[in-house]
Amino acid sequence: MISLTPKLEKESESPLYDQLYRYIRKQIEDGSLAVNDRLPSIRQLSAHLVVSKNTVEAAYQQLLSEGYLQSRPRSGIFVLPLEQVPEVEGKPGASVRQQSEKPLHESSLQGRVGTIDFEYGDVELELFPVKAWKRCLAEAMDNRLHEVIAYGDRQGHLGLREEIARYLFQSRGVACSSHQIFLSAGTAHAVSLLCQLLPLTERIAMEEPGYNGVRAVFANHGKDVVQIPLEEDGLSIEALQGCGANVVYVTPSHQFPIGIVMPVQKRGKLLQWAYEQGGYILEDDYDSEFRYQGQPIPALKALDRSDRVIYLGTFSKSFLPGARLSYVVLPESLADTYRNGLQNYSQSVSTLVQTAMYLFMRGGAFERHIRKMKNLYQSRHRALLRAIHDQLGSRVGIIGQKSGMHLLLDVYGRECEELIQLAAERGVQVYSPMKHWTNPAECPRSYVMLGFAGVQEEQIREGVSLLRQAWFE
Amino acid sequence: MISLTPKLEKESESPLYDQLYRYIRKQIEDGSLAVNDRLPSIRQLSAHLVVSKNTVEAAYQQLLSEGYLQSRPRSGIFVLPLEQVPEVEGKPGASVRQQSEKPLHESSLQGRVGTIDFEYGDVELELFPVKAWKRCLAEAMDNRLHEVIAYGDRQGHLGLREEIARYLFQSRGVACSSHQIFLSAGTAHAVSLLCQLLPLTERIAMEEPGYNGVRAVFANHGKDVVQIPLEEDGLSIEALQGCGANVVYVTPSHQFPIGIVMPVQKRGKLLQWAYEQGGYILEDDYDSEFRYQGQPIPALKALDRSDRVIYLGTFSKSFLPGARLSYVVLPESLADTYRNGLQNYSQSVSTLVQTAMYLFMRGGAFERHIRKMKNLYQSRHRALLRAIHDQLGSRVGIIGQKSGMHLLLDVYGRECEELIQLAAERGVQVYSPMKHWTNPAECPRSYVMLGFAGVQEEQIREGVSLLRQAWFE
Ligand SMILES: Cc1ncc(COP(=O)(O)O)c(C=O)c1O
Ligand SMILES: Cc1ncc(COP(=O)(O)O)c(C=O)c1O
Repeated sequence: MISLTPKLEKESESPLYDQLYRYIRKQIEDGSLAVNDRLPSIRQLSAHLVVSKNTVEAAYQQLLSEGYLQSRPRSGIFVLPLEQVPEVEGKPGASVRQQSEKPLHESSLQGRVGTIDFEYGDVELELFPVKAWKRCLAEAMDNRLHEVIAYGDRQGHLGLREEIARYLFQSRGVACSSHQIFLSAGTAHAVSLLCQLLPLTERIAMEEPGYNGVRAVFANHGKDVVQIPLEEDGLSIEALQGCGANVVYVTPSHQFPIGIVMPVQKRGKLLQWAYEQGGYILEDDYDSEFRYQGQPIPALKALDRSDRVIYLGTFSKSFLPGARLSYVVLPESLADTYRNGLQNYSQSVSTLVQTAMYLFMRGGAFERHIRKMKNLYQSRHRALLRAIHDQLGSRVGIIGQKSGMHLLLDVYGRECEELIQLAAERGVQVYSPMKHWTNPAECPRSYVMLGFAGVQEEQIREGVSLLRQAWFE
Repeated sequence: MISLTPKLEKESESPLYDQLYRYIRKQIEDGSLAVNDRLPSIRQLSAHLVVSKNTVEAAYQQLLSEGYLQSRPRSGIFVLPLEQVPEVEGKPGASVRQQSEKPLHESSLQGRVGTIDFEYGDVELELFPVKAWKRCLAEAMDNRLHEVIAYGDRQGHLGLREEIARYLFQSRGVACSSHQIFLSAGTAHAVSLLCQLLPLTERIAMEEPGYNGVRAVFANHGKDVVQIPLEEDGLSIEALQGCGANVVYVTPSHQFPIGIVMPVQKRGKLLQWAYEQGGYILEDDYDSEFRYQGQPIPALKALDRSDRVIYLGTFSKSFLPGARLSYVVLPESLADTYRNGLQNYSQSVSTLVQTAMYLFMRGGAFERHIRKMKNLYQSRHRALLRAIHDQLGSRVGIIGQKSGMHLLLDVYGRECEELIQLAAERGVQVYSPMKHWTNPAECPRSYVMLGFAGVQEEQIREGVSLLRQAWFE
């Protein structure tokens, strides 16, 4: 058996599972662990290192989901080939993984009376940091009125851009400067500006299915959108290679709407594709904050050594959809072109929102909020998975359950329209993900989409129980 | 001499000049006054009606600027042919014309120390209704949190759209329903969405010079922009007719940047053009609130009998640039197409700003603010004209001085770059309007642009005095 002898420090700020994960990753990266080496079982390693099984499991899970390891049924866990794992320049900081069994706060106030709405896009209202946000708004109005009234910087509030740069480095391993960051009023608007101001090619590739909002923007700017089919680990690189586009829009941290987390090998291949093409990758990292198994995988942008990734971020999932605040991180080489194009445009995000967000991030309230929401959504996610397991059992399959704010149900042998209708009769709203297919007829009829971020645990349980009654009784 | 016998009611809410203006307009419209009839002089009519000369002058001025009358040097004031004056459906309400000699409030706080900045786009900070706006923000956060957090209606906050409809009818004679109104994060974004979601032709006509922000949007959406030269009363209809476009973007209430107020005859001809072409007019009514001679002329949209005008409005001039809040009023026949296109897009204006603006308008604070700013800007405008007259005299010409928040100076025989440089050395910032010409080389070198809305009266006087020293001493 291979020997693993990490120095684990119980006093360290970094949790044990994280130290172990980093140790093994390093062993793989520098070849101390070779391809196809089998790792000790969880039980063995936990006994050997005198740590809990949870610790080992969490470290393995992270390495599995990042594509360093592979679990082969009934034979064990093995090291995968590293081929094209690119170097991580800015590694994600040791953000503490939180696993509370209960949400920090579960309000008893109910949502809309009589309906349970699993709409994707909703966020939790009850936990919104009203006081802190109001304080930031008031401070902006009281002490920064000149910022709040005027048009403001075309590129966006400088302080806010600096906070975003800091945040991206810490949470996503993305190293960039405020100079490369451009604010915009939502992701669609960001993509529209990219189409308008950058010399992107006429042909743009996209995952199929993929986010309808962005697909519409491409189409509405006269782009020829090529659909790239999905494989188990994300979009097909082969299909991408043959498609004649040299720009691709992807959602690697949580494929929308299918929910695939793209493993690190695939990320390497995708970057390699961009390097060879001299093309660009538009990475939409929309809900990367909410990942429930292991740490987030570094963003493509963090792995990119050749300045080929255009990174899209938004505060709609992590904080406040109504803020209409999102951003783009441009490669150094495109930043000036984009800035020149902006000379004719005003910034489109409310300056009050920009300044308040700057204050909110600067004071640490944003990171506190993220931590709180991570816990909350993780609990809801777990409650949803459990309820589906208990109530719907083997009559449904779950698609994309590692992260995010939604998942898909495959209700075997049934039809979406009927399912939605039956659910509605019981007061439960579920949705079809169909619009995210270029040709909606290709969306499996048995898929329904459940957003859970805005639904309280109790309602999740009740909702799924009502779904059972509606669909199977 | 023709006889004018209006029944003027001194007790009426409508000011005397307005009653007189309406009376004469009606006489012209129903033929009681014929083309080329000469009107009594101001002195004669004021004696005849026993009203002040100011009253008669104000009524005449309004009719002159609307194109009902013409003043011929040394012979008098005459009725103009009415040919294509279209029917006004919703007439502008009797908004009280305010002529305070002093601004309501002139703060003694100074702007940036040491510079006087005539930048166009600035608004007055000191008079901003901080308290009222904060109250609306707080009410939105406290009592309408659900509105403020979520993405909100794609088309925009319904209550706000209703308030806008009401406001447009009262102030601009535009009759429309909330159904036709779509909010957007600034004018450029509005025009971008129009390009994306409506089947506008590939060729779009624009005034030359014209607003560079909108020209850039057209170009960035692959439109072929045709430049239509300006005549004294606005863009050349002949050039428009021959240009092969059937969509035109115009700024009739205050041509940007030249400042022409398009008279009513020309408006009729322009509408006629659209009717004949089956085309559309994009009317950008950006600063129509600020008009210093007579009442606003009804918007093209108010005169349009065939649903051919797409109306663009913004709160950037009338209220708060930093709100990033503007809107489009679509013809009935295009509203559904646009709404369908929006199905894939989220609303881009901050929901907090939308809700607060709704409360601000509903409570009457917006109209109070407009009245206050009208007075203030009118005083500043007058102070600027007076200072230019006193200090610069016949060495400059003034272009576009009836309304708005800026004017152009023609500094005879001089060069813009040098003028800007000399002014800067004295601590005064003035600007070139050059970027608003498609081919900047065609902008007369002797033009400089002065925005005055954000500069206090005293600074205006000091600034113009410094310009004299900088340029002529
Ligand atoms: C894939 C994807 N990207 C981005 C967004 C967020 O868009 P915005 O920033 O406009 O709120 C969403 C929201 O639904 C999404 O699904
Ligand atoms: C002609 C014209 N239209 C509209 C605007 C306002 O644009 P926005 O609504 O983006 O502030 C301006 C501002 O400079 C302008 O000059």
